[in-house]
Amino acid sequence: MLKTRLDLDRIRAARRAIDPVFLDTPLFRSDALGSALGCTMSIKLETANPVRSFKARGTELVAGGLSDQGRTAVVCASAGNLGWALGWSGRRRGLDVTVVASHRAPAAKLDRIRALGVALELVDGDFDLAREVAAGIAQRRGIRLVEDSLDIETCEGAATIGLELAPPAASFDAVLIALGGGAMATGVGYVMKELAPGVEVICVQPHGAPAMTRSWRERRVITTDSTDTIADGVAGRRPIPAVLDDLLQVADDAVLVQEASIVAAMRMLLEHAGLVVEPSAALGIAAVLEDPDRFAGRHLVTVICGSNVDLDAYHRWIRP
Amino acid sequence: MLKTRLDLDRIRAARRAIDPVFLDTPLFRSDALGSALGCTMSIKLETANPVRSFKARGTELVAGGLSDQGRTAVVCASAGNLGWALGWSGRRRGLDVTVVASHRAPAAKLDRIRALGVALELVDGDFDLAREVAAGIAQRRGIRLVEDSLDIETCEGAATIGLELAPPAASFDAVLIALGGGAMATGVGYVMKELAPGVEVICVQPHGAPAMTRSWRERRVITTDSTDTIADGVAGRRPIPAVLDDLLQVADDAVLVQEASIVAAMRMLLEHAGLVVEPSAALGIAAVLEDPDRFAGRHLVTVICGSNVDLDAYHRWIRP
Repeated sequence: MLKTRLDLDRIRAARRAIDPVFLDTPLFRSDALGSALGCTMSIKLETANPVRSFKARGTELVAGGLSDQGRTAVVCASAGNLGWALGWSGRRRGLDVTVVASHRAPAAKLDRIRALGVALELVDGDFDLAREVAAGIAQRRGIRLVEDSLDIETCEGAATIGLELAPPAASFDAVLIALGGGAMATGVGYVMKELAPGVEVICVQPHGAPAMTRSWRERRVITTDSTDTIADGVAGRRPIPAVLDDLLQVADDAVLVQEASIVAAMRMLLEHAGLVVEPSAALGIAAVLEDPDRFAGRHLVTVICGSNVDLDAYHRWIRP
Repeated sequence: MLKTRLDLDRIRAARRAIDPVFLDTPLFRSDALGSALGCTMSIKLETANPVRSFKARGTELVAGGLSDQGRTAVVCASAGNLGWALGWSGRRRGLDVTVVASHRAPAAKLDRIRALGVALELVDGDFDLAREVAAGIAQRRGIRLVEDSLDIETCEGAATIGLELAPPAASFDAVLIALGGGAMATGVGYVMKELAPGVEVICVQPHGAPAMTRSWRERRVITTDSTDTIADGVAGRRPIPAVLDDLLQVADDAVLVQEASIVAAMRMLLEHAGLVVEPSAALGIAAVLEDPDRFAGRHLVTVICGSNVDLDAYHRWIRP
């Protein structure tokens, strides 16, 4: 019996509160990708929606809940995707949304947040500084602070992906999940462990932002002083204890990958599947590239969690 | 009352014969694209599946039917996407599939057909020569010839896209459909006219391959001597009379676009929606770019019908 903050009935109920445009996303096998990787490779595509990432599954729950309670404002820190998603979900419900982000976040993400008419505050620092600033705003204004991965809606939203990956929907040997704050890893991992315990749950993080992976390995929170990775969506330094506790229950492994592997994986997703993805979405493929023997001949699935990337940087990265 | 070869009950029944991986594809509004185009722009994405185009909706019907009849072999001419799709649908059912294509077809398409173990015959000519060669093979071997757009399954398969675009699923002012042989245009157009007659059905073809559009305008088959377009998927010279008859019933307009507009549309789809598409899939956006006043402020949807493109050519095209 898993002891996490997650609950299968709540996750199933969450589907009804999420705009269907974010649900039942494409799940398909790419023969070209599998053949290049030496395994059977399936893709769960979370980018073909209005905000081009999986984050709206969670923000739909947050914004729906706030709206039901008659609340009118909300603030979050974001690496970019959460902010766009919260802005999208909030606008539909007439919520006043404030997003705090690092000024180093990709312009592609910040531009979309601004375009929604969201109040965007940029901090001269990284995501963890943005978290502090957002918390301050919430306290001063007395409004709801959305904390990615800590707030259960963000995990439950991500967990609905798991419902679409578990039998009878599908059957896999392993699922490869990008690991950042942990909402997606704990959410999807929990559902797999409940509904398909034989499926290996493997979390993947960059060597350049290893705090959660190190924490998982040592079973205690380990923070780092800085991050150094192109995978901006998963670049946190301070794991949240409650999320680590859940991750310890549901993850079978957590691996770190090199930047070069992330770039090679992005290139493969473009070449063999025609998909433009942001670096965080390529982490699963990067893990296969780094350890082909481990995955040879197995049926894997990875969640392509976002496609919000600055094209100039993207073209620089994938140029052979 | 429309008098076409299509029938709504048969199209609804077709859904049950098509592998669900090809059905209920993403349909979403792209605010960034709409804002760049001066309208509300929705995308119907037919590329997130194992063959990266809509063609398998039709080949599933063809191959399923052959399999039910105990037939074991099938041949088609293809610009590339039909061949990959027929190979995919045929392999699952143990069919011996032969594809005839132009040696000028994109390597990305031909490689995928070969990878399926399909017999691939290349002709030193264009798609219409491939049609002749395929017909000869069918006659000699006494096997089923699949003729795209003429064979009703190819139109009915495409028409299932229409079921996903019509109310109550959605509501649009106009639908923009790539026009080649006419399977997609007549299929989707028919369903829209039956279920949502107020939605304008607009077919889009390149100036460099205008045979069907000219035929539609003059209400009689007009052939051309050659084609000159990067939109390889729609580059036919000889419209099929029965398909033209149907198109005359269901299309409100057929427009021709310049190559430069197709390239600009591909660039916009990448920049604003993160989508790599083949030229034929960009025709709808190209039509909006060429006539912004006509479309200003309206809610449009276009079918992104394929993403099989040679990346070298793609990067050459989209380079600013």
